[in-house]
Amino acid sequence: MENERVPVELDPTLALSLLGHAEFGRIAFVADGVPTIRPLNHVVLDGRIIVFTRHTSALGRAVRHHAELQVAYQADEIEPHSRLGWSVLVTGIAVDISHDRHGGQLGLQVESWMKYPLDMVIAIDPQEVTGRRLTVAN
Amino acid sequence: MENERVPVELDPTLALSLLGHAEFGRIAFVADGVPTIRPLNHVVLDGRIIVFTRHTSALGRAVRHHAELQVAYQADEIEPHSRLGWSVLVTGIAVDISHDRHGGQLGLQVESWMKYPLDMVIAIDPQEVTGRRLTVAN
Repeated sequence: MENERVPVELDPTLALSLLGHAEFGRIAFVADGVPTIRPLNHVVLDGRIIVFTRHTSALGRAVRHHAELQVAYQADEIEPHSRLGWSVLVTGIAVDISHDRHGGQLGLQVESWMKYPLDMVIAIDPQEVTGRRLTVAN
Repeated sequence: MENERVPVELDPTLALSLLGHAEFGRIAFVADGVPTIRPLNHVVLDGRIIVFTRHTSALGRAVRHHAELQVAYQADEIEPHSRLGWSVLVTGIAVDISHDRHGGQLGLQVESWMKYPLDMVIAIDPQEVTGRRLTVAN
């Protein structure tokens, strides 16, 4: 029998905490006028999402071309069988912090799955954090 | 010991086929000038990605306001332990096909995990399909 899944809104603090426990997410941004998505590893530090990329990547280029780039960052953990879990969405501003004090150290805290040489640390300052848990209706 | 993961580019036909076997993905689009992401269920039919939503959702509203809305659609299947798998990205145009011949039937082929009443069928016509498999370097 199919469960009745219902979404329950999450408190922004809890939503950001769930995001912090996820290993990767997806960033959406506009590149050359067209929205695009890239999967990325991240860490959440002091309320900011830190990602580590290359300055030649699509994201790196977009951030270099816009001092304050509007982005969305999303992660979810959905258990495939029950299809229950959570989804978190952050909208915010992405800024290059590669050359900030501690910027390089922050980048090294991101556990990258890729073996590319990474050289650009980006922080996303959240403007809005929303989250939903998919749960089963009583 | 940590594996060396390397990305291998996938042929667009294979990439779309992998997407067709996934149950859900994420759509990115610009709503009120800000990029956003929404998780969605989908089916791939005749080379188009079909999603089923509500006309009052953020996506529904964006498609109603733009006859041809630029979107990105992304799905991935990453095995959490090995972190190997694939990721596919489609950029294309989203159009409302709710009132097209067979539009309603196409919507019903999308297995929605939500029990919302859905009333808007959207087709994404791919302009570009790219995919990468994360594999282990020899």
